[in-house]
Amino acid sequence: MPAQIIVAYKTPADAKAFDAYYFGEHVPIARKIPGIRKYHVSRGPVVTPAGPSPFHLIATLTFDSLADIQKAFGSPEGQAAMADVQKFATAGVEMNFFESTEL
Amino acid sequence: MPAQIIVAYKTPADAKAFDAYYFGEHVPIARKIPGIRKYHVSRGPVVTPAGPSPFHLIATLTFDSLADIQKAFGSPEGQAAMADVQKFATAGVEMNFFESTEL
Repeated sequence: MPAQIIVAYKTPADAKAFDAYYFGEHVPIARKIPGIRKYHVSRGPVVTPAGPSPFHLIATLTFDSLADIQKAFGSPEGQAAMADVQKFATAGVEMNFFESTEL
Repeated sequence: MPAQIIVAYKTPADAKAFDAYYFGEHVPIARKIPGIRKYHVSRGPVVTPAGPSPFHLIATLTFDSLADIQKAFGSPEGQAAMADVQKFATAGVEMNFFESTEL
């Protein structure tokens, strides 16, 4: 069953610097994670029905299975991506993963 | 540009009752929202790199555009779905929406 990681980045103090680092530095590192089938990122503001969201950017990575996500986290490339996240996601980040089906 | 709503339900007191209501009652109501192109839901546990997640179920609804999401929220079917969420998501729910592109 396909599985996804949703990575939700809290709004940083300097959104412009965050975006420059995210797209210029982090994406090339994250793309090397083995097993990624699709990599989607939010563009423009993240909003909630009540107004602005606490999140600035939300990325969704799709894999073929939960086992592939676990392998990805254990891989050197996955660990490098996680270490990089710790470096730039200073306002906080929430990462959730799960098997996913289309209804 | 495609746009998504991510609906993240906090872990309820009674997960079995939640799932029965979600799949049996809520999904048929939510499916009526105009403009939904894809409706994905998590299956099995939602986890984080550090262990269990505060979320029990995560749904992702895909639309053709942010304008279509705004129209969906304003529609009678969207309002009925939101009212239903308030009824069963008693442990809390986070809803974020945004334009999304594939990298």
